[in-house]
Amino acid sequence: MLVVMHANATPAQIDAVADRIRQLGYSPHVIPGALRTAIGITGNRGPEGRETLLMMPGVEDVVRITVGYKLVSRETHPEPSVFPIAGSRIGHGFTVIAGPCSVENEKMMIESAQFLSARGVKLMRAGAYKPRTSPYAFQGLGTEGLRILAQVKAETGLGIVTEVLDTDNVDRVEEVADVLQVGTRNMQNYALLRRLSKAGKPVLLKRGMAATVEEWLLAAEYLMSGGNRRVILCERGVRTFADHTRNTLDLSIVPVIKHLSHLPVLIDPSHGTGRAEYVPAMSRASLAAGADGLLVEVHPDPRSALSDGQQSLDFDAFTQLYASLKPLANVLDVELL
Amino acid sequence: MLVVMHANATPAQIDAVADRIRQLGYSPHVIPGALRTAIGITGNRGPEGRETLLMMPGVEDVVRITVGYKLVSRETHPEPSVFPIAGSRIGHGFTVIAGPCSVENEKMMIESAQFLSARGVKLMRAGAYKPRTSPYAFQGLGTEGLRILAQVKAETGLGIVTEVLDTDNVDRVEEVADVLQVGTRNMQNYALLRRLSKAGKPVLLKRGMAATVEEWLLAAEYLMSGGNRRVILCERGVRTFADHTRNTLDLSIVPVIKHLSHLPVLIDPSHGTGRAEYVPAMSRASLAAGADGLLVEVHPDPRSALSDGQQSLDFDAFTQLYASLKPLANVLDVELL
Amino acid sequence: MLVVMHANATPAQIDAVADRIRQLGYSPHVIPGALRTAIGITGNRGPEGRETLLMMPGVEDVVRITVGYKLVSRETHPEPSVFPIAGSRIGHGFTVIAGPCSVENEKMMIESAQFLSARGVKLMRAGAYKPRTSPYAFQGLGTEGLRILAQVKAETGLGIVTEVLDTDNVDRVEEVADVLQVGTRNMQNYALLRRLSKAGKPVLLKRGMAATVEEWLLAAEYLMSGGNRRVILCERGVRTFADHTRNTLDLSIVPVIKHLSHLPVLIDPSHGTGRAEYVPAMSRASLAAGADGLLVEVHPDPRSALSDGQQSLDFDAFTQLYASLKPLANVLDVELL
Amino acid sequence: MLVVMHANATPAQIDAVADRIRQLGYSPHVIPGALRTAIGITGNRGPEGRETLLMMPGVEDVVRITVGYKLVSRETHPEPSVFPIAGSRIGHGFTVIAGPCSVENEKMMIESAQFLSARGVKLMRAGAYKPRTSPYAFQGLGTEGLRILAQVKAETGLGIVTEVLDTDNVDRVEEVADVLQVGTRNMQNYALLRRLSKAGKPVLLKRGMAATVEEWLLAAEYLMSGGNRRVILCERGVRTFADHTRNTLDLSIVPVIKHLSHLPVLIDPSHGTGRAEYVPAMSRASLAAGADGLLVEVHPDPRSALSDGQQSLDFDAFTQLYASLKPLANVLDVELL
Repeated sequence: MLVVMHANATPAQIDAVADRIRQLGYSPHVIPGALRTAIGITGNRGPEGRETLLMMPGVEDVVRITVGYKLVSRETHPEPSVFPIAGSRIGHGFTVIAGPCSVENEKMMIESAQFLSARGVKLMRAGAYKPRTSPYAFQGLGTEGLRILAQVKAETGLGIVTEVLDTDNVDRVEEVADVLQVGTRNMQNYALLRRLSKAGKPVLLKRGMAATVEEWLLAAEYLMSGGNRRVILCERGVRTFADHTRNTLDLSIVPVIKHLSHLPVLIDPSHGTGRAEYVPAMSRASLAAGADGLLVEVHPDPRSALSDGQQSLDFDAFTQLYASLKPLANVLDVELL
Repeated sequence: MLVVMHANATPAQIDAVADRIRQLGYSPHVIPGALRTAIGITGNRGPEGRETLLMMPGVEDVVRITVGYKLVSRETHPEPSVFPIAGSRIGHGFTVIAGPCSVENEKMMIESAQFLSARGVKLMRAGAYKPRTSPYAFQGLGTEGLRILAQVKAETGLGIVTEVLDTDNVDRVEEVADVLQVGTRNMQNYALLRRLSKAGKPVLLKRGMAATVEEWLLAAEYLMSGGNRRVILCERGVRTFADHTRNTLDLSIVPVIKHLSHLPVLIDPSHGTGRAEYVPAMSRASLAAGADGLLVEVHPDPRSALSDGQQSLDFDAFTQLYASLKPLANVLDVELL
Repeated sequence: MLVVMHANATPAQIDAVADRIRQLGYSPHVIPGALRTAIGITGNRGPEGRETLLMMPGVEDVVRITVGYKLVSRETHPEPSVFPIAGSRIGHGFTVIAGPCSVENEKMMIESAQFLSARGVKLMRAGAYKPRTSPYAFQGLGTEGLRILAQVKAETGLGIVTEVLDTDNVDRVEEVADVLQVGTRNMQNYALLRRLSKAGKPVLLKRGMAATVEEWLLAAEYLMSGGNRRVILCERGVRTFADHTRNTLDLSIVPVIKHLSHLPVLIDPSHGTGRAEYVPAMSRASLAAGADGLLVEVHPDPRSALSDGQQSLDFDAFTQLYASLKPLANVLDVELL
Repeated sequence: MLVVMHANATPAQIDAVADRIRQLGYSPHVIPGALRTAIGITGNRGPEGRETLLMMPGVEDVVRITVGYKLVSRETHPEPSVFPIAGSRIGHGFTVIAGPCSVENEKMMIESAQFLSARGVKLMRAGAYKPRTSPYAFQGLGTEGLRILAQVKAETGLGIVTEVLDTDNVDRVEEVADVLQVGTRNMQNYALLRRLSKAGKPVLLKRGMAATVEEWLLAAEYLMSGGNRRVILCERGVRTFADHTRNTLDLSIVPVIKHLSHLPVLIDPSHGTGRAEYVPAMSRASLAAGADGLLVEVHPDPRSALSDGQQSLDFDAFTQLYASLKPLANVLDVELL
């Protein structure tokens, strides 16, 4: 940390701050400047004491230097993490996870799974529990949805990525899922994160709607520090003033995450744009930006979908998209999975 | 809803949309315009079918008209709601809820409670469970914190407002609390909202960090539609590009909520600004804007606070603030509680 | 400035950074930490050299400490500035500047001016030149509008606050105006700011739609450093994700500006909310927050206004608002002008 | 437009609105609904009258349907526009415009131009006039910068893209420039746009820092409706809460612009990210997303750059980037220029 003193701070105020730093068990390094004095602090390992210092007379600001995450940081783990899951290897190559927004019924799920499996997709996404903005909207099939997911898995061998909304049903979801998804609204649901840090399955952690990178990585740190080392990040668009897409897909997060963390990062262009017609362009852009894969909504008949129809690709559109990704991946020397 | 056709939509496309509207069980009203045709829809009660229509050829947009919330709406409940709680009446007059961010120990809690009670405060805020961005930060005293809150209540008669983070500890918190607080990160934790909709205590629902008014009111609708009629809204600042305060306090939400809903709305100027020195100005502004009260952080010694010290008032500052609110309330003809 | 080294930075990298700092003519202060080394810099007076340092191997970040504005800063000018203008004193008490969005015709202007003057208002706002989002919208009466403003001034003695859009018409506007207004879209129109820094009239500088406080104060610094010492700040709402008001009125800017600068700060609740029905609440809140005044839209018949009708108060509403401000100002011990 | 009545609106209020619509010269179409009545309006060609209607008793909202831009719209001009400029064809293939942020001196400009020209680049960017946040920062070489640009053009045949800040120097800049750049801060500087609508050179219009797509396209409409048909759009990142990049690069604007307009759209990944190390990933993503090209900062020695050094590529990095774009463009069947 670095204490920035007010331009008019008195020598006595500067001394008092230095004393307080020593009381906190740290070392002060006074740096007199042309306009104001700054005081560097060493010996601390985090921002503890920052607030105390901020309230002292003559202090203008206390700048944090060290970020709060450790286990997720690339500084402490320079190699990128790779997680083998159900025949795919997330973090190696470009992994396409596809499927409908919600499990709607057995027929559409089996149909979708067979379609995806035939194209080479290894992991299927679909929600049995759906977080919906309105209490009057379709909330998912629940346990019946889990049963269908288990059946899909048994019949097609696809790995299952599905959302868990509540600590109470982690056990149940974990029986079926290969990856436990945490939605954007739950990125800072710490009770859920703590429970999932003890789960035996990898966690796909979506970025919160208005989360900074630091908050997102600290949420991942909750999972890792609790013992679950397999965390997959997923950008799905953030909330801004822009109204031409459902969310603003923050694709430049990809090189930033690669710089800061060893964890893999996927892109969800379906929620990121909110309209099926924009999904292919952003999927190709995700691959070119260096993302580790996609989480994309595909539905046999988007017009009849119970949720997110507008942003779901139909089979033809997905086939076309997937076909367009292959030569791109080839040129980029990335394995498409 | 209103379907907006593309400027170049063909008559056949317009007919197809009208037919689809009839299949959905609604009535189409074709409105030919100078540049494009629009089709009004009647007979629907919500946005069902919107996505289907959006995907039809020739459709440019489908505009929603009816909002999704009902029970929280002022249209269906024109009188403002008033909730008598522990000697205060939230929704009538200006209710000041004050106290430390966290329950830290018995001594500071009793000391704070006696101080606040002596000034006429009826409801005390303090967290036993704290949602913290970092897994390495102080997470609250938990059940020991609840025990202290019960003791404070028994000794001083103050009502208790405290946060509940998890469905698992609602029962425990409800035994002590007079108001169950849902934090900004949990505004769309629907498992928690559903559980609280069955609680016997009122819920104070903070606005999500990036929630629109509609999303916030729909979260309140989760509580009300589940059976809990006592919902108190609380604005605590939203996330924007602005970096001069911890959050951007959206005070104009007050007249907007008064227009749209019958529920009371409080302001949290402590989180809304993040610095104690800005709290008094924004507290007075909240009163002048017509809010129903404050949720404000007060600590016997902010410099030693385990959390949020920087934004907590000390006793002197609170005394001054409270004294400055009285004549204002008087002039505005609002009872200060 | 403070250089933050990467956790794995080598001693040679640290030395190289220290050398580079010396080459820049500054002094390095190496502060070894538990996790990483930081290097304080003294002798600089601004962020010059920051980018060079950022690109050196082993450097993680370079933190700026000193803000770039000087003349607008409260540190160098502790007393609040007060500008006497046309019988009012901006920066002392609470100054209400009112009037229509645009000069529409002589009749409505004289009628409005007489109405406002009779209520004690000293400064009238109205635009002869209007910046409009669409090229097809009413763009103001131009020179004919200036002629009407001059007539209003002559007949009623009111001071005139009017917008200047272009360097080319500063001379012309300055002949009539008592305060030259710079709109939100022009806050960083530096050609205009430079020209206005040589003007003989005070400048009312609206905050840019997405401007940070630092950018705003640096825009004010352009005016002051060019020689115009009379700068009045005006918050008019910023752009965020929130859609319940036209802009998000950032009222907490008031205590922040008071902390950072000696310049007066007004609030424009008309643009800040976009709806006349929300203006009175936010006007009272502005007064209670400690603002130096209002810039508020008033129109004899808002329904027929050529621009901004929806957010303009009619005479009755303004009369009521003004009446409600008086006792508030009285209680706050602020003179209402 | 569509008038949405309040749920409790009376028949008399509905009639009054219909009458007012007829007075405005339009036709009302009353659509009674289950919860509320809506009234469609035909005969209008824009939002005129919207504000009047919004203020009538019983009216909840007036929804706009027709967007305000015409000449820039793809509905009225279905074929994409292509502008041949200095050997390149913007709107056909992927055009890379590169060069330093500012013209610093003759030597670095000639050196950069020769380097770029040798790699096949046809258009060079560099600013003689620089809009800087601080009045104390380097503001560009001005006319001397223009002289150097003219020399570069004469010696290398490169087309010149350079910023114009002020109506006063459009003539001078136009003599040298092949493309006139309007920066993000000037997107709504209507005096400048009006002047440029009469210019004989194409205009590159950067998106405002917080501009919606509609505002951006309306700014382009200012240029086109004034007579300048050659408008090139350029996304350079928008301002959001996110702090991991200098701006948030909104890459999904690409398919949206392609849907709404016939104008070409470029991406500026240098301002979009603010750090050279993130530029290559976002450049490749721009190509894959379907953008018409890049505006990218390249400097012979970024460490000594007078502005934007941190986000400028050096020659090696540009060479690598350009080499990586070729096979991508090839696979995407896009010509790289």
